[in-house]
Amino acid sequence: MKIALRLDKMGFHYIEGGWPGSNPKDMEFFNRIKQYTLKQAVITAFGSTCRPGVVPEQDANLNGLLEAGVQAAAIFGKTWDFHVTKALNTTLEENLRMVRESVAYLKSHGLTVFFDAEHFFDGFKANADYALEVLKAAAQGGAAALILCDTNGGSLPHEVHAAVSRVARELPEIELGIHAHNDGEMAVANTLMAVQAGAIQVQGTVNGLGERCGNANLCSIIPNLTLKMDYQTVPRENLAYLTELSRYVYEQANLNPPANQAYVGESAFAHKGGMHVSALLKEPGTYEHLAPELVGNTRRVLMSELSGISNLLYKYKELHLDKSSPQGRQVLEQLKSMEHRGYQFEAAEGSLELMLHKAMNGYQEPFQLASMRLILEMREQQPIHSEAVIKLKVGEEMVHTAAEGNGPVNALDNALRKALETFYPEVAGLRLSDYKVRVLEEKAGTEAQVRVLIETGNGKKTWGTVGVSTNIIEASWQALADSMSYGLLPETLK
Amino acid sequence: MKIALRLDKMGFHYIEGGWPGSNPKDMEFFNRIKQYTLKQAVITAFGSTCRPGVVPEQDANLNGLLEAGVQAAAIFGKTWDFHVTKALNTTLEENLRMVRESVAYLKSHGLTVFFDAEHFFDGFKANADYALEVLKAAAQGGAAALILCDTNGGSLPHEVHAAVSRVARELPEIELGIHAHNDGEMAVANTLMAVQAGAIQVQGTVNGLGERCGNANLCSIIPNLTLKMDYQTVPRENLAYLTELSRYVYEQANLNPPANQAYVGESAFAHKGGMHVSALLKEPGTYEHLAPELVGNTRRVLMSELSGISNLLYKYKELHLDKSSPQGRQVLEQLKSMEHRGYQFEAAEGSLELMLHKAMNGYQEPFQLASMRLILEMREQQPIHSEAVIKLKVGEEMVHTAAEGNGPVNALDNALRKALETFYPEVAGLRLSDYKVRVLEEKAGTEAQVRVLIETGNGKKTWGTVGVSTNIIEASWQALADSMSYGLLPETLK
Repeated sequence: MKIALRLDKMGFHYIEGGWPGSNPKDMEFFNRIKQYTLKQAVITAFGSTCRPGVVPEQDANLNGLLEAGVQAAAIFGKTWDFHVTKALNTTLEENLRMVRESVAYLKSHGLTVFFDAEHFFDGFKANADYALEVLKAAAQGGAAALILCDTNGGSLPHEVHAAVSRVARELPEIELGIHAHNDGEMAVANTLMAVQAGAIQVQGTVNGLGERCGNANLCSIIPNLTLKMDYQTVPRENLAYLTELSRYVYEQANLNPPANQAYVGESAFAHKGGMHVSALLKEPGTYEHLAPELVGNTRRVLMSELSGISNLLYKYKELHLDKSSPQGRQVLEQLKSMEHRGYQFEAAEGSLELMLHKAMNGYQEPFQLASMRLILEMREQQPIHSEAVIKLKVGEEMVHTAAEGNGPVNALDNALRKALETFYPEVAGLRLSDYKVRVLEEKAGTEAQVRVLIETGNGKKTWGTVGVSTNIIEASWQALADSMSYGLLPETLK
Repeated sequence: MKIALRLDKMGFHYIEGGWPGSNPKDMEFFNRIKQYTLKQAVITAFGSTCRPGVVPEQDANLNGLLEAGVQAAAIFGKTWDFHVTKALNTTLEENLRMVRESVAYLKSHGLTVFFDAEHFFDGFKANADYALEVLKAAAQGGAAALILCDTNGGSLPHEVHAAVSRVARELPEIELGIHAHNDGEMAVANTLMAVQAGAIQVQGTVNGLGERCGNANLCSIIPNLTLKMDYQTVPRENLAYLTELSRYVYEQANLNPPANQAYVGESAFAHKGGMHVSALLKEPGTYEHLAPELVGNTRRVLMSELSGISNLLYKYKELHLDKSSPQGRQVLEQLKSMEHRGYQFEAAEGSLELMLHKAMNGYQEPFQLASMRLILEMREQQPIHSEAVIKLKVGEEMVHTAAEGNGPVNALDNALRKALETFYPEVAGLRLSDYKVRVLEEKAGTEAQVRVLIETGNGKKTWGTVGVSTNIIEASWQALADSMSYGLLPETLK
């Protein structure tokens, strides 16, 4: 429901809400969405043609679509001769009847009917004449559009272009659509090819979520079509909400957004090569295929070994700091030496900003560690018991407390929060969302250097912090302490 | 180094190992790889043309390429007029000189030189004549191939096809290549288009890893070109190692493999729709774009079908164990449940073999843990002090000892060795060579499940062991105990 309302707000024309005949949850969606007045999206139900040997009037699946009370339906039918005989166990002729009559039946009840031509591209390769006959049967039945589906997701762009062009020539009167899967990493490209060959309806999902390798990713298709190829999709100004939509859907699905996702990923406009960044500061167009603001994303300049000075200069600018002051130069030296020891600030901008504020704004951390003790005990086959004892200096006061956890770092995390809670109630709102450990020099065995990266959020934004040590507990402590300090940073420094 | 050796084994023709002039780590790679005799891969160094106003002989970057001692170099130069004047601050004419002379200089020292035409597609759009002139300058300099780069990653397949076709017409004598980025989710499609238009060299990375949205993904390009378009890439039979290569690279990079990745992802051939599965059982071709075995992947139909089972059947055979005995079936069940909890035996055959010997050969571990205590203490700015106290049962005797270390796991390792030494002097010859930590469910923060993999050697062979727990110390202990037990395994069981 939440996602459907967001899709409507974004300006999508059709929202396919499920298969009403297949389970009660899908039917419930159609019932509940009726309470809302949508801006323009037409709620669409999904289903199949009638079964072999059954007339539409007596087909439970088609009647389920009518019961859903929708204005539009998308029904799939077979177009690959091999599937008709092998999977459906019926004749090619009977399949044409099923397609034609099913479309006509739904149309006679006032529905806009889209025909999803399942396995169209495989069918077209195997027996083009029959695949086209099936499309003609759907057109005769009164379909509003024929959607050509790459169900197995293995078609290539030039094949899709050729097949869609042929259909457009053979059936010039009817609207065409494309439904692509990503099994060959081609779903977005195949969709663009189909549009160039004449398709005007695109089926896809936000972030390309879907079975196996996913469906065609609307978060890439929309900016490609709208901003680069000048097609009308959703209103152009709404593209500024695309990144937000992508993250919202990941959040609802409880999935981590991949940082490298095209257009909307956190790293999609991240720059680190020193030479890139110095050119970028002169002219953003030099190293960006489009302006990140157009899709609601932001430019990020990363710190790294290859970074050179330009990256840090960008951070100085962002935080309004003076790069040419003695402190500015000193931080740069400090940063280089830390990177050499294994610190990495690309995913730890929180730690980097704290370091800059400390050096240049006289910032003081909200607490200092006086002492810490961790005790882990295990007896015979029992699980380990982990306890952390912590003594902090907060302002002028000393706080001494202890906590348990299901591991040493969790115990430390719990003890730190407990110690800070009375001074800073807002720590209760800070959530650790990611904890990563990387052993830096593998060959050193258990004596190796370890880097810990922690990601923390407060519901509004997230930040990364880092710690490095041969001792995993010390590295974790550094990252943990920074994560809390950043969360408690005064508004004036943010 | 590890990845380069794998790439060579897979049959890649060139391996770009870094930019020797940019940092000492990259130069070290070129020095160390010389110790190995590769099958066919040519180690290639990356760099740029000389700077404006500098002759090649005096250019530090070009001389760095020579110092790397490689047979081939890929150097990038500007082809977009806007970049020449805006980013390089030089004239269009001077840029042609830099390209021509830089290529000629490296060639005169016996190197095969590839010219990476940076921003070629943007440059071609802005000023096609100048972009082509730059290519001609590189050809005049003696480049072995011209690599057309979509540096900003925003080009579309039809644009790439048109531009490459034009270059192939204008410069019919020279080999062309393609270097694509994924900012528009087009890197794989653009690469295929370039090949169709005449490019014969493809630059890419395993899993598409690379800055921003990544480089062109070789794990998708190779099967598309080889299995679907009938081009020669790596030897066709080596495609059966593609999934393994993909996972190996993720493992080295300490990244979780995305389950939905095309061809090599864990879900790439996963089927769940009831209708799909029943058709699939009749005829696999109905719902799969190709057979998963071709790329070394496996079909997954049921949730319980996990990868370790085929490994287990193989192990039974290798260790001459009877898989159909009640114990054989019991171990299989145990393994399934362990994999479900996050254990992974691909890199931990030591732990797997110990489990099998215990279940089927009446094997008993050489020691049992009676109790263990770890104490970590830190005061103010001092480093953590780590101490482990350990009580083991070895045969009928009890041994109780303690040791320090530079981290909790190192202290535990030292205490375990100390306890075992008097009984098994050979533990002194066991060396831990690798210690890896992987956080399994990222969203759970410091409460997440952790998997530890340890690699140990005795000078003759190496073995991997695994531990899983929410407690990193417990997981480390499991892997550590297995690593010693395996090292002490009687000769008769090896």
